[in-house]
Amino acid sequence: MLSLAKHLVGEILRFAQDDKGSMKKLIALWSLVAIPAFAISPVEMSHAARDYRMKHEREIVGELMELLAIPNLASDTTNIEKNANALVTMLTRRGAEARLLRMEGTPPLVYATLPSRNAKITIAFYAHYDGQPVDPKQWTTPPWQPVLRNPSGSPIEPSSHIDPESRLYARSASDDKAPIIAMLTALDALKSVKATPSVNLKFVFEGEEEAGSPHLGAYFDRYPKELAADAWMLCDGPVHQSRHMQLYYGARGVTDLEMTVYGPSRPLHSGHYGNWAPNPIVTLTHLIDSMRDTDGRILIAGYYDDVTPLTDVERDALGAIPNFDDDLKRELALGRTEGAGKSLNELILIPALNLRGFVAGHVEEQASNTISTEARASIDFRLVPAQTPERVRERVERHIAAQNFFIVRENPDAATRMAHPNVVKLVWGPGYPASRTSMDLPISRRVANVITAAQGVPPYLLPSLGGSVPMYLFRHGNTPVVGVPIVNHDNNQHAANENLRIQNLWDGIEIFAALFTNLR
Amino acid sequence: MLSLAKHLVGEILRFAQDDKGSMKKLIALWSLVAIPAFAISPVEMSHAARDYRMKHEREIVGELMELLAIPNLASDTTNIEKNANALVTMLTRRGAEARLLRMEGTPPLVYATLPSRNAKITIAFYAHYDGQPVDPKQWTTPPWQPVLRNPSGSPIEPSSHIDPESRLYARSASDDKAPIIAMLTALDALKSVKATPSVNLKFVFEGEEEAGSPHLGAYFDRYPKELAADAWMLCDGPVHQSRHMQLYYGARGVTDLEMTVYGPSRPLHSGHYGNWAPNPIVTLTHLIDSMRDTDGRILIAGYYDDVTPLTDVERDALGAIPNFDDDLKRELALGRTEGAGKSLNELILIPALNLRGFVAGHVEEQASNTISTEARASIDFRLVPAQTPERVRERVERHIAAQNFFIVRENPDAATRMAHPNVVKLVWGPGYPASRTSMDLPISRRVANVITAAQGVPPYLLPSLGGSVPMYLFRHGNTPVVGVPIVNHDNNQHAANENLRIQNLWDGIEIFAALFTNLR
Repeated sequence: MLSLAKHLVGEILRFAQDDKGSMKKLIALWSLVAIPAFAISPVEMSHAARDYRMKHEREIVGELMELLAIPNLASDTTNIEKNANALVTMLTRRGAEARLLRMEGTPPLVYATLPSRNAKITIAFYAHYDGQPVDPKQWTTPPWQPVLRNPSGSPIEPSSHIDPESRLYARSASDDKAPIIAMLTALDALKSVKATPSVNLKFVFEGEEEAGSPHLGAYFDRYPKELAADAWMLCDGPVHQSRHMQLYYGARGVTDLEMTVYGPSRPLHSGHYGNWAPNPIVTLTHLIDSMRDTDGRILIAGYYDDVTPLTDVERDALGAIPNFDDDLKRELALGRTEGAGKSLNELILIPALNLRGFVAGHVEEQASNTISTEARASIDFRLVPAQTPERVRERVERHIAAQNFFIVRENPDAATRMAHPNVVKLVWGPGYPASRTSMDLPISRRVANVITAAQGVPPYLLPSLGGSVPMYLFRHGNTPVVGVPIVNHDNNQHAANENLRIQNLWDGIEIFAALFTNLR
Repeated sequence: MLSLAKHLVGEILRFAQDDKGSMKKLIALWSLVAIPAFAISPVEMSHAARDYRMKHEREIVGELMELLAIPNLASDTTNIEKNANALVTMLTRRGAEARLLRMEGTPPLVYATLPSRNAKITIAFYAHYDGQPVDPKQWTTPPWQPVLRNPSGSPIEPSSHIDPESRLYARSASDDKAPIIAMLTALDALKSVKATPSVNLKFVFEGEEEAGSPHLGAYFDRYPKELAADAWMLCDGPVHQSRHMQLYYGARGVTDLEMTVYGPSRPLHSGHYGNWAPNPIVTLTHLIDSMRDTDGRILIAGYYDDVTPLTDVERDALGAIPNFDDDLKRELALGRTEGAGKSLNELILIPALNLRGFVAGHVEEQASNTISTEARASIDFRLVPAQTPERVRERVERHIAAQNFFIVRENPDAATRMAHPNVVKLVWGPGYPASRTSMDLPISRRVANVITAAQGVPPYLLPSLGGSVPMYLFRHGNTPVVGVPIVNHDNNQHAANENLRIQNLWDGIEIFAALFTNLR
């Protein structure tokens, strides 16, 4: 302990003299010196977790493989129940009080508590045990028959010393059963050195996240006491592409829109009617172009008015994340990027309007000299604080109406089509708002500091994911929510041959062990 | 004869005092007075043809049904030969010298001559005996089992007095075997009154028009003597939507273009990469909008420079065609039209850029929050004199390059994609130019005048079809080409349940009989 403190003070002094040393890292290091002497420090606990893991590699991977062998589609009630019951058993074995929270017609929430004697606050760790649908034909080995492969891709049996670059292939290997096993193994590691959690722990494992969490909000309403916590840790998502640990404090919201515009009521010969009968494809391209330029800028009046600017802390955190844009451009064969020269890290923090699809008529072999009856486009809007789906809809519809379109919600009849120069059918998806927890809160800083101490380097801190996660559901009464991802980014998540890089599981065990014993 | 001439002179005087009497009609009537006394006049010949037809309705429709019972896909060699041989027999029976012109690997041209003793010129009548592909599942009765139906739709047997609003259902009933039977029956009608053709007649029936006439040009090169004529009559296409007879003196040319633009080399999560990775759909909508506005106006620099303006005669002819736009707008449920208020009749005489298709990503149920790897659009360009496909390509490509696109012909590799902000793959279809015969030529006026005399009202004269027909192939050395359509417009041409309105067949017989005996 003392030698560590000495080392840290040295580090702090070095950083203070170094232009590149960020304030964030300084704070992180200071806070570690301030850890009470009676507790086990992050670095001690992560070392202890490593020792424990190195002695139990076969069992840890074996337990994960057993869990992965249970099919886990949210819609597969029988197997979802099997997963939930297995998790209750696994949690109970670690001394947690585990049970299932239930609502009619939806997978149960696995719920467990592990109170700690001296703890003042309760931290809830969230993960999900359901997985994305599979197309078994696309998989090299069946999705629910987990296979461990060495770095050359050959199947291997879990042994007591597994090459950490090996990968475990199965649906949900990464998304999201690995974090569950990492947390449970972290509890084992605590026990191995008789360490106790520094906070009251709650574990909540959802069974229909990949189906869009349609009942999570209702669960919060139905089980307010069980689902109360001083902060939530969302254990989902990948670490940085560089394999560097990262935390996320928010997620963009999302809503989506289907647009249909109309041409003649039956397909027309383009030679006989072209130039006269309106071409719906052209109507739609012009409508789209009125909404967004080729640089990603949204041209809808007032669209950016609802955007809360980043705080200085968020800007600093962003600045500390390395810019991988050139690598990514190469990887994706891009000759340009949108965003007027801004970096990807910055751009995912502002509102986005993405064209998901445009379908009308036919191209190539199927093309015929026809004026189509309609053209359809699909858009997803990424929302940032303080945008709301309602406000986005209002602004978008006002813009479309201003382009001389009459808006309908159902297929228009002939009278409606004839009564207006342009008719557009708009169908909105449900959508939800963005969510962001301040990086300045004590718990926000604490999570980062514990991980900095455990790993020796600070994690990247993302003010928000570019993607959308319904984090807002966890924020009843502004409860802080921090995303703690552990799995590799190149994991084929949601696709065939999903996999987990074993080193990420090992890192996860150490991170959770450090957090369990050092949050406060 | 004398009483007719008297009647015509009376008509002429009446028209001369009448503001609404058009110059065209006056000319038509004068020319009829000038018909040599020894010949049979259009009205006499058409009456004679009607008499003949009324005595042979069962046989005429029976012969057409026999011909329609032979399947006639250009690719179905066995049956195409059967059609061709049947036509040779049918022509020979009428005293024509008929034979097949052949080229390797393509259906034969049915070729027949019927010289006339005092004729000074040769007029060739073109039709085609092949038909569009069929999807038998969509047909009420099989496409090559012709069925005659009365106006209520009940099947009837051909009788000696067929309700002229009956329809004959079969592939090619209208397009294009009816004109062939109308011509052959016209020859029978001539014989019935011992009338002789006023010109040397040639008949040329093509066997792969619906496959795009890929060898017609080669036939012209291979058989220059056989395919020489002083003028061509193209007996294809429908009469006006009002059932009024029309002639067309030209057709627009056509060429087509497939465009593909590129986004990232693999589909990306729109939340994680949106606003940064270029969205190819948006790239393509902006490219399209740079080429054409929502009013049909082509925005490509110099695009209209190659357009030959209409002559006064063409303008007058156009002005004489009634404007059906309001009816059409109702029929097609249109709330607006393109073309800045111009009529359909005018708009089909100027260049057109039609979007045939736009396909990228997915919409509705299939939509996912993805940035697509590419977006594709398909365009057909309608050409007018003196545009050429080569010139159109040149101007379009210069425009696209000026929008900062690098043009490729094959799928670009990663290095190419990275080397340019925007890459577009352009693939052009073959294309051919527009064609137009002057309405002022003696033969052009003669055809119109004969029909005016035969029917008692002048036909509508279209300077050009909006659609494309390779009329230019017939115009070797500027040979005049006039389109003489006889079938109903509402014939389901190219689709299931193609049909012929019997009255149109009757009218066609009279028209061809009048032309055969009065062209010069």
